[in-house]
Amino acid sequence: MKIVESVPNFSEGRRQEVVEAIVDEARAVEKVWVLDYSSDPDHNRSVVTIAGDPEAVIKALFNMSKKAQELIDLRKHRGEHPRMGAVDVIPLVPIMGVTKEECVELSKELGKKIGEELEIPVYLYEYSASSKERENLSEIRKGEFEGFHEKIKLPQWKPDFGPDEVHPTAGVVAVGCREFLIAFNVNLGTDNIEIAKKIAKSVRHISGGFRYVKALGFKLEERGIVQVSMNLTNYKKTPIHRVFEIIKLEAERYGVPIVGSEIVGMVPMKALFDVADFYLRLENYDPDSVIEKKLLDAISREVDQ
Amino acid sequence: MKIVESVPNFSEGRRQEVVEAIVDEARAVEKVWVLDYSSDPDHNRSVVTIAGDPEAVIKALFNMSKKAQELIDLRKHRGEHPRMGAVDVIPLVPIMGVTKEECVELSKELGKKIGEELEIPVYLYEYSASSKERENLSEIRKGEFEGFHEKIKLPQWKPDFGPDEVHPTAGVVAVGCREFLIAFNVNLGTDNIEIAKKIAKSVRHISGGFRYVKALGFKLEERGIVQVSMNLTNYKKTPIHRVFEIIKLEAERYGVPIVGSEIVGMVPMKALFDVADFYLRLENYDPDSVIEKKLLDAISREVDQ
Repeated sequence: MKIVESVPNFSEGRRQEVVEAIVDEARAVEKVWVLDYSSDPDHNRSVVTIAGDPEAVIKALFNMSKKAQELIDLRKHRGEHPRMGAVDVIPLVPIMGVTKEECVELSKELGKKIGEELEIPVYLYEYSASSKERENLSEIRKGEFEGFHEKIKLPQWKPDFGPDEVHPTAGVVAVGCREFLIAFNVNLGTDNIEIAKKIAKSVRHISGGFRYVKALGFKLEERGIVQVSMNLTNYKKTPIHRVFEIIKLEAERYGVPIVGSEIVGMVPMKALFDVADFYLRLENYDPDSVIEKKLLDAISREVDQ
Repeated sequence: MKIVESVPNFSEGRRQEVVEAIVDEARAVEKVWVLDYSSDPDHNRSVVTIAGDPEAVIKALFNMSKKAQELIDLRKHRGEHPRMGAVDVIPLVPIMGVTKEECVELSKELGKKIGEELEIPVYLYEYSASSKERENLSEIRKGEFEGFHEKIKLPQWKPDFGPDEVHPTAGVVAVGCREFLIAFNVNLGTDNIEIAKKIAKSVRHISGGFRYVKALGFKLEERGIVQVSMNLTNYKKTPIHRVFEIIKLEAERYGVPIVGSEIVGMVPMKALFDVADFYLRLENYDPDSVIEKKLLDAISREVDQ
């Protein structure tokens, strides 16, 4: 079976009935499973995780976007998180039996449909981006909903799909295929924030570290320790264990121990198996030898029939 | 969804049509999935891995045993592997949503049915054993098919179910609930077999090592190295990484490096996650945060409906 995951973000995190109405649209589509959803009232934003058959996921995302357009008015939206649309961003992630290329095609199919039928301007981002400047979501979102009425007039910010004008209540949306993003934090046995910041610098791409790591140093006030907080944007090319081992080495240089680590939110099976593979020095590593993976394949073949 | 796995062993590894006929019996049962099967002509033995709904798995195992009884005549069976029955042993392993106790009940249900309807003497083993002496499969199997005509007359070897006489062509069978068994081997960068033997001794239960480890030292002739070959009989209580780290330490003591390791056959997701958990020092480890696990839960809930 082919499985695509999506984590659409909606600009509503306070009115629970609106969030439920949006999630219900995904629940109503066959071969789509709602894996998780959560709302942040301060951000006034909700994140939904769905997965399933690629075409069914596209259908669910379109219906969820339509519902968000109906129920959310960005002119009245206030929240801490930057946003530009009622449905703000729709990432598509290939999970099983789907190539990056197929996933990019799916994002274009969805973008076209949202642009034409909902009349919301669509920007393709990450792997789906039509130009280098559009790869990065935060570059697209700069100026937010309020600023987009001007930004959209600039030739370099002509939408990939849909009208050349911001939708009056639903704004604009970014749609794109990307890798699974892992939120990985490492906790250090010190209250010296400078050490966390230095170590974050040593692993993050922007300051010379690993290609697919974003990192910051934070204080965990209540525990009296510091944390290197990271997003791993491509665990296939920059695996968890490699980042972890460098952090361990750098921490040793300051005489600081690693007291623990955490993975926030979901993680693909393979990301953790790669860790086991590395430390156990496995010679015959085959992710398909995992019984739950075999079972998932077998059951989903049946669902396909 | 509740999932039980079973790995029944059949005393036929040469006539492929017989093996297929047996496997077909599992394929024919709804909510049972055949995950793997393989035959060894030297051992003249086949191992089938099935998993699925507990009652459906019991049904499949009964039908497979009946087919084996029809097609295999142990009086004519020759092979290197010790055996006592056409269907030789039926282990049941709880995988998901099933307790050890429920699994033991299932094994008794199956044993009773095989004993009464197929008239094959049944010995419950491992967690299902009716006495200490019957926990160990090799203790039960001692004497094999040929010797069992006498052994079965001893009061301490009265079968748990079925007649008090060996079935003339199908012999006797062991049925029981056990933990998932992981075959884990560690390869050492030396050709000195004594070192592999000493390290095997240091980790195995029988000579003072870990409670759930069986281990032997072997030569890998073609690679010119040696191997510590193990069965981990309860990875929940004796996890892979703990055994691996002790082997690494013991090898260091002889100045020998670990050049690799291997997991032979299937492995439960959690066994590998526990490894990642240990090395990454995870604080918030939740196996349910794995996306494929969430998906399996979601899909199987649907299959249940």
